[in-house]
Amino acid sequence: MPTYKLTLAYDGTEFSGWQAQPGRRTVQGALQDAWREITGETVRVTATSRTDAGVHALGQVVGVTTESNLPAERLLGGINAKLPDDVVVRAVEPVDDDFHATHDALGKRYRYRIHSSRLRPLLDRHMVWHLPQPLDAGAMQRAGRLLEGKHDFASFQSTGSPRDCTVRTITSIEVGQGGAGQPDLIWIDVSGDGFLYNMVRNIVGTLVDVGAGRRPVEWISEVLDACDRTAAGQTAPAQGLMLMEVKFSSDSPA
Amino acid sequence: MPTYKLTLAYDGTEFSGWQAQPGRRTVQGALQDAWREITGETVRVTATSRTDAGVHALGQVVGVTTESNLPAERLLGGINAKLPDDVVVRAVEPVDDDFHATHDALGKRYRYRIHSSRLRPLLDRHMVWHLPQPLDAGAMQRAGRLLEGKHDFASFQSTGSPRDCTVRTITSIEVGQGGAGQPDLIWIDVSGDGFLYNMVRNIVGTLVDVGAGRRPVEWISEVLDACDRTAAGQTAPAQGLMLMEVKFSSDSPA
Repeated sequence: MPTYKLTLAYDGTEFSGWQAQPGRRTVQGALQDAWREITGETVRVTATSRTDAGVHALGQVVGVTTESNLPAERLLGGINAKLPDDVVVRAVEPVDDDFHATHDALGKRYRYRIHSSRLRPLLDRHMVWHLPQPLDAGAMQRAGRLLEGKHDFASFQSTGSPRDCTVRTITSIEVGQGGAGQPDLIWIDVSGDGFLYNMVRNIVGTLVDVGAGRRPVEWISEVLDACDRTAAGQTAPAQGLMLMEVKFSSDSPA
Repeated sequence: MPTYKLTLAYDGTEFSGWQAQPGRRTVQGALQDAWREITGETVRVTATSRTDAGVHALGQVVGVTTESNLPAERLLGGINAKLPDDVVVRAVEPVDDDFHATHDALGKRYRYRIHSSRLRPLLDRHMVWHLPQPLDAGAMQRAGRLLEGKHDFASFQSTGSPRDCTVRTITSIEVGQGGAGQPDLIWIDVSGDGFLYNMVRNIVGTLVDVGAGRRPVEWISEVLDACDRTAAGQTAPAQGLMLMEVKFSSDSPA
């Protein structure tokens, strides 16, 4: 049975997240429905990241093992023709039988976008967190640097889905401002080998406390050392978060 | 009675265009409703461009003469608080009593966006015309140059709202590709002193015939000379069109 790696993009606004749930509109459910329409086959697909309701993706990765012998190109066109307009499969690639989208992922990159302006956002209003006050992106960048590396991120793990081991490695946090004709945009790219529940959103909420001047840059180290969720800032809203890419060992170096 | 110039941005997707119509959700209606909620006053506002259903704006200009003595800053905040999330007032400026958003406009710039890719667009799917074939943006640019200047644009006027005089001046047509992390994007900026009904969308549909290789660049001059709507290409869909800015004599030079 061939196994395929699918790269998926979606606008999470109208989805109750990735994971299939009875009576809910989910990305997993939409993909499995489209797959059944094209191949006649009921599959259960596995994604690298089980994104929450409202979270978007440009580079979600999904593994599918199928009995279908349709070529990858036909699957790509056929599934896209059946999917609703807020999900699109960007690529279908044959992979080894033992490919696993979750276990084999070496790292992920998320982008969080903030609209920092007195005026409401318009065209990207479902893709940003609107904060009316000015933010010091430079201070947020310096604070982000203090989180890079291998640490116990227990302070940044939301209750609800706790893990035994809360040590993770953040390979980089990059904070940028403006660009692409969007002077009011602040984006925060967080790359790492794995993430605890709500970890990126909790990091963003904490960096915003620094950016807004409510806390000094060095406070981030105290939060990290506390290993206590109540030490960190608020959880940033889901709609600003986007899964950008997933790295696998088979990927060619950038 | 003070007169104000409002600069307005909207996502046209869920609007039946600019102009107020009974029983329809329109931008003019939404603005007049918000104005009434803030000031208690029923006004009739005038816009530079009566954009069609589905057309977007970043820089629509609206004139309002009011009896309200609320300062501009309060009007801006108050109206934005009452408007739905797909319209935002970007600026409120006091102007001379005789200001007229339509008659005083010296020129307008529209942007038309095409998603040129086999794959469907996702995040900007309501803001682009999706064309699955490759387009030669260079050929479209050369064809666009042939439309610049003062011409009779009768070939590019849709029936339905004919004008007696069909002579207009296009000051520039710029065609660009990619940028802003959108390699599949082709944008066409059309600036001019005034536009006939559907003129930009008819120009775009005609340029696409050139970009797709169905017609040579020089064909554009034949279309222009024909002064006959049937000589030109199709009307590009509304959703790719955006009013970017309106120029007034009072504006400071760029």
